[in-house]
Amino acid sequence: MAPVKNGRYIFNEVPTGLPEPGKTVVYDDSETIDPDTVPLNGGFLVKILVLSIDPYLRGKMRGPNDKGYNPAFELGKPLNSFSVGVVVRSENPAVKPGDHLYGIFDFKHYVIEHDPSKFRVLKDEGLPWSAYVGVAGMPGETAVYAWKKYAHPKKGEVAFVTTGAGPVGATVIQLAKADGMKVIASAGSDDKVEFMREIGADVAFNYKTVDTRKVLEKEGPINIFWDNVGGETLEAALDFAALHGRFIECGMISEYNTTERYTVKNLMNIVTKELTVQGFVVGTIRPKYEEWFYSTWPKRVASGEIKYKEDRVYGLENAGQAIADVQSGRNFGKSVVIVAEE
Amino acid sequence: MAPVKNGRYIFNEVPTGLPEPGKTVVYDDSETIDPDTVPLNGGFLVKILVLSIDPYLRGKMRGPNDKGYNPAFELGKPLNSFSVGVVVRSENPAVKPGDHLYGIFDFKHYVIEHDPSKFRVLKDEGLPWSAYVGVAGMPGETAVYAWKKYAHPKKGEVAFVTTGAGPVGATVIQLAKADGMKVIASAGSDDKVEFMREIGADVAFNYKTVDTRKVLEKEGPINIFWDNVGGETLEAALDFAALHGRFIECGMISEYNTTERYTVKNLMNIVTKELTVQGFVVGTIRPKYEEWFYSTWPKRVASGEIKYKEDRVYGLENAGQAIADVQSGRNFGKSVVIVAEE
Repeated sequence: MAPVKNGRYIFNEVPTGLPEPGKTVVYDDSETIDPDTVPLNGGFLVKILVLSIDPYLRGKMRGPNDKGYNPAFELGKPLNSFSVGVVVRSENPAVKPGDHLYGIFDFKHYVIEHDPSKFRVLKDEGLPWSAYVGVAGMPGETAVYAWKKYAHPKKGEVAFVTTGAGPVGATVIQLAKADGMKVIASAGSDDKVEFMREIGADVAFNYKTVDTRKVLEKEGPINIFWDNVGGETLEAALDFAALHGRFIECGMISEYNTTERYTVKNLMNIVTKELTVQGFVVGTIRPKYEEWFYSTWPKRVASGEIKYKEDRVYGLENAGQAIADVQSGRNFGKSVVIVAEE
Repeated sequence: MAPVKNGRYIFNEVPTGLPEPGKTVVYDDSETIDPDTVPLNGGFLVKILVLSIDPYLRGKMRGPNDKGYNPAFELGKPLNSFSVGVVVRSENPAVKPGDHLYGIFDFKHYVIEHDPSKFRVLKDEGLPWSAYVGVAGMPGETAVYAWKKYAHPKKGEVAFVTTGAGPVGATVIQLAKADGMKVIASAGSDDKVEFMREIGADVAFNYKTVDTRKVLEKEGPINIFWDNVGGETLEAALDFAALHGRFIECGMISEYNTTERYTVKNLMNIVTKELTVQGFVVGTIRPKYEEWFYSTWPKRVASGEIKYKEDRVYGLENAGQAIADVQSGRNFGKSVVIVAEE
């Protein structure tokens, strides 16, 4: 095989608002690689098939000295995210050609890795590989682990789930319904609302056209709030929370792309309603549940029991646009970039 | 005994800012009572000795249709609060003259009650009766129960306690020290700072003259935040919280007397630091621990093991000023109104 272009998607500049393809993040195809001959030095060569575009990536697009809960992307270097790749060549006996690996890879067509312990070898359960960066991967883990650990659902209680058409929210809707709850779910378009109804939401609404406070006033009070958005929605949830409500703080995307944050004015509800407001990061809970998750959950997804929606973007060169779309909610379902077919 | 005046302290008008004695709360001595002859109709006559002035009373000074977590005071009727009184006469065999009762009584000199189950008959453990509305009563319970249930202290960790000279904060400081923590404590005057040092705070500061953020930056990060104040201090605590910090949300007095609330801008720390922010109201936790508390805690206070400070105001007619002082932090120690000596 002759050398081929090995395109990379690079973190070019710290954004102040939404990331901009061609400016803050840029595609570069100046490098080449010969997959047949590139020296591996004891490592293994992986061809990236699919990579995951998630809300949290925005938090990594910061300056090297800005504090954050996970490492910042390095300026001038490729972005990285959860991905699935297939092993092309290997000099490490733990990994063999044809293995499908799940883990964090750089945004490139080909990468050379050396540490097999950083990756999970996926079993073929009949799912598209892209599902492993969504409902059967980190976002699915996020929903399942935190629900298991923090939700304490009771039959007949009310859950309010934000970003209910995304991979985390959609999974939470289904978990809450399975536990016998009444589920209120919000998202930002009418087709998302339709999807949330299909997967079981009792009350689904478009927060851009319907007043969240009016919905919660009518359908609440809410016992569980799954927060992916923060800001004004969190404030509404505080006002319409039930006594002893559980707030699962998964993310606050309303705050990621603005310096003028909506400030929540009614935190005293935490005291008077005796709320538990629990923040979490999936990586911390993962070790406890990971093996159980991967031995059971992908099968349930493959059987059709757990439903999901994918928003596929084709071509690594479109990863930047996919990132911007996720930050502004233009994706419909789990955003994945199909880098290559096998 | 001839009839005597039976003064009452009345809720007269809903305040917008601080309660004002003579306006929003007023003393009225137009009623009289003859303790020897007043008909009891099967009840018991109690002479009030001491009543408790607490921050939460402000939340009850609202209109009849304004929502709140506990019942609003009724306009034109006496205020009420935790108090200790002595039984003068009784037609109920469960209560006898000379019994000291602890519970919620109206702000009056004499009251007739009918339900003994609403009150606790106090044992004389050598404490002044006023201690039972402070460290050996509801505020002590508040500190002890929530610390037991929500703090999960670890030796060597750091606790930050606000209003550390008050009955709740001062008790929390001592509980945290007993659990081997480093304790940072704040209050609003230099004599309070001195007292907090005496009872064990490792770092005590006057938040009016010292920058809370600078103290926390130097002495933190904080594993436990005991929040009695909310607002700007809560925001600082979020910024200097440690991973997996526990925020015990007991009250937010910075918000009680203003309609222009300080709005907290950094709630995303809850997610990224995986914080547990736990609101509570003491009445909900009480049933589980109450008998244990009253059988052990007053003895520990009486022995001098647990220290406390009292701010005594003499005369029911001064209750309104005491309320205003507590809301603005002018009291030093637990505010009690001595209504009568025995």
